[in-house]
Amino acid sequence: MEPTKIILDENDLPKDWYNINADLPSPLPPPLNPGTGKPLGPQDLAPIFPMELIKQEMSLERHIKIPEEVREVYRLWRPSPLYRAFRLEKALKTKAKIYYKWEGVSPAGSHKPNTAIAQAYYNMKEGVSRLATETGAGQWGSALSFAANLFGLKCTVYMVKVSYEQKPYRRIMMETWGAEVFPSPTNKTNSGRAILKQDPKCPGSLGIAISEAVEDAATHEDTKYSLGSVLNHVLMHQTVIGIEAKKQLEMVGEYPDVVMGCVGGGSNFAGISFPFLHDKLKGDKKDLRAVAVEPTACPTLTRGIYAYDFGDTAQLTPLVKMYTLGHTFIPDTIHAGGLRYHGAAPQLCLLAKEKVIEAKAYNQIECFKAAELFARTEGFIVAPETSHVIKAVIDEARGCKEEKTILFNNSGHGNFDMASYDAFHQGKLVDYICPDSKIKESLKCLPKVG
Amino acid sequence: MEPTKIILDENDLPKDWYNINADLPSPLPPPLNPGTGKPLGPQDLAPIFPMELIKQEMSLERHIKIPEEVREVYRLWRPSPLYRAFRLEKALKTKAKIYYKWEGVSPAGSHKPNTAIAQAYYNMKEGVSRLATETGAGQWGSALSFAANLFGLKCTVYMVKVSYEQKPYRRIMMETWGAEVFPSPTNKTNSGRAILKQDPKCPGSLGIAISEAVEDAATHEDTKYSLGSVLNHVLMHQTVIGIEAKKQLEMVGEYPDVVMGCVGGGSNFAGISFPFLHDKLKGDKKDLRAVAVEPTACPTLTRGIYAYDFGDTAQLTPLVKMYTLGHTFIPDTIHAGGLRYHGAAPQLCLLAKEKVIEAKAYNQIECFKAAELFARTEGFIVAPETSHVIKAVIDEARGCKEEKTILFNNSGHGNFDMASYDAFHQGKLVDYICPDSKIKESLKCLPKVG
Repeated sequence: MEPTKIILDENDLPKDWYNINADLPSPLPPPLNPGTGKPLGPQDLAPIFPMELIKQEMSLERHIKIPEEVREVYRLWRPSPLYRAFRLEKALKTKAKIYYKWEGVSPAGSHKPNTAIAQAYYNMKEGVSRLATETGAGQWGSALSFAANLFGLKCTVYMVKVSYEQKPYRRIMMETWGAEVFPSPTNKTNSGRAILKQDPKCPGSLGIAISEAVEDAATHEDTKYSLGSVLNHVLMHQTVIGIEAKKQLEMVGEYPDVVMGCVGGGSNFAGISFPFLHDKLKGDKKDLRAVAVEPTACPTLTRGIYAYDFGDTAQLTPLVKMYTLGHTFIPDTIHAGGLRYHGAAPQLCLLAKEKVIEAKAYNQIECFKAAELFARTEGFIVAPETSHVIKAVIDEARGCKEEKTILFNNSGHGNFDMASYDAFHQGKLVDYICPDSKIKESLKCLPKVG
Repeated sequence: MEPTKIILDENDLPKDWYNINADLPSPLPPPLNPGTGKPLGPQDLAPIFPMELIKQEMSLERHIKIPEEVREVYRLWRPSPLYRAFRLEKALKTKAKIYYKWEGVSPAGSHKPNTAIAQAYYNMKEGVSRLATETGAGQWGSALSFAANLFGLKCTVYMVKVSYEQKPYRRIMMETWGAEVFPSPTNKTNSGRAILKQDPKCPGSLGIAISEAVEDAATHEDTKYSLGSVLNHVLMHQTVIGIEAKKQLEMVGEYPDVVMGCVGGGSNFAGISFPFLHDKLKGDKKDLRAVAVEPTACPTLTRGIYAYDFGDTAQLTPLVKMYTLGHTFIPDTIHAGGLRYHGAAPQLCLLAKEKVIEAKAYNQIECFKAAELFARTEGFIVAPETSHVIKAVIDEARGCKEEKTILFNNSGHGNFDMASYDAFHQGKLVDYICPDSKIKESLKCLPKVG
């Protein structure tokens, strides 16, 4: 009998990450300095990132070795289990076989520590003693707090003030791992002080928090900045998910017809899909489909345009070529906070542009319905972000005329998101389908390049 | 190299539970009808429990088969991983080897589903269509909601009103799994209505919620009652933990010198220790130590007396022989709500009386300190209940003059308990060491028996 969980031995934990830069169908357009319009060099990033991560960001090597010390920490929860969703299949009366990788087993409860651990390690190796980062509701901040602590680094988290006040539990989690967490805007940075001067009651935003964290890193010798998605090296660190999944599927003689994941910045989708996309791009799996799932309230891949834009609202980052709704785009307040990003990872966007991957968008109410069905069949209550891929998987399985193997990334648990399930049960959720006019207006902000 | 996690194949999931009734050093004093003083018969329990569970409650068979349908559900998270706490050992500079069984991987986040699944299954088999139970902060209620749903049963949870209002997240979890949850006292039962008539603003108590759930079951043909600890069959269902742990330790050539668990009603401690106690009682492991850890605010095993007493405050249950602080004892409000019980499981108490097991008590602040060290070394943030065994393990390891193998049950995660960690960080926690006078006063309530 096929097992419910396909478990990989710790000795089979991947020894390398997979770098899709080696296999992209066309060269990745380089990030540009917004002042000069010229491609960025390593030296531009050196004030805020350690050199090894900058090298990884620009590397064209297909395989990059995972340091033993990183693998040692991964062992706390990796290899993560691959589940066969027998009960969900039965409820759907589908001919599809549904497999999911369960990343909720990590101490922080999501896939985020896969890169947080690696980033903390390289910073520690290069003598950095403190990491600064931003966080919205706290998923990324808690992953980095956990990771920094294990490598003896201090960690400073700028948490969007409204979340800091309304959602204290992730903040407490970060503090339990020893991080210091500040409600942003703070009076600790020039950017924070400037905003507070204008509006002492400013509730903060992810853009402001990024500015504060980057400034903190740039102005302190011992401190670097850390980012939880979008960048090449972040996506690469997440490929342990897909590499493990591939081995696990091999153990039961399977290979997916479709690989799916939800997309905010793109790291969890990249993590599960890139190692399979290698086989599509360079091997014999030409028919493999990979589907990125996003919210209709923030339809970057499905309705954005492919252009150079700023990664952040405050225009602090380099210009990157990606699908974007414009850096001034403010998505409606859906519960899947981690999917509210105006752009997406450049690697992912290039693959979408080249039609290597597909994209779909869903409304939040149908996603919560899907997540509830999942909870009532498979048991696990997932994060609102993850509910989007579950909805897409259910549609894919229901539409199945013949046997098909679906693999998706169950990226995290919903233990800190129960209030959103309550709103769903009580019929208080609203669907926000972004109007064309809003996108059109927002796209006016795109910078002129080249 | 020894792995961090010792993983058992799903095919090695135990096929039987272990029933310690077969091996007790002296016969378990029978539960008594409080009216007649006579031992209880199966027919006395039939209105509220299904016959198979009543048979298990009274069985003297050493091994009881786990139904395939129950093993099927266990596979969603079992066998649970056994961890070697390498990082904690290093931080303690101890010669001890510390292993822990991690039960936080279950969908409800604790060991509780091990029995909830079994109870839901037997009720379903006997044609029951609804389960009623009580819950305090919601650990047990969420486990039963999860289990009932998987076997197509309805589930009604009477949740102590003050928790229902102050701690909504477990309530929402139960609703996500399809349960109906009422703040107790309700106006749905005679016992609830009687209390509301006297005190419309009554905040509720576990005793009141038990009365309501039992009455609900006793007055509805299609409904039975379900209890999350204390009873023989509940403890037995938890022995999957220890049976798995034994096999996992064998895989690395180990056998514990000490087995430890925290004790409220006693089911998680029994679950990990009973399969090992078999070897002490009937085999050659005479030196094996088993240590039950409780809070100083509710020192049942360390300072109670061994006597017949009611299992509940409201005097609704049979009389059971156990260590008790008196059924009128109201423990101070420590954060480990699951350890605030005036008695403990009769099997456990007999073993303590016969000095087969030891007991220790700790204050809550030192327990949170221990849990914080655990979070910063092993990563996982545990429930306040579990923090007690971690404190005891750390003391045991620190006191170690020579190599020793310690095994403990890491019974659940603390994702729904972050407010208590916050109180700890902010120095707001208070230690409650129960004064002798309080115990002396409370023990006056003991019923006269025999």
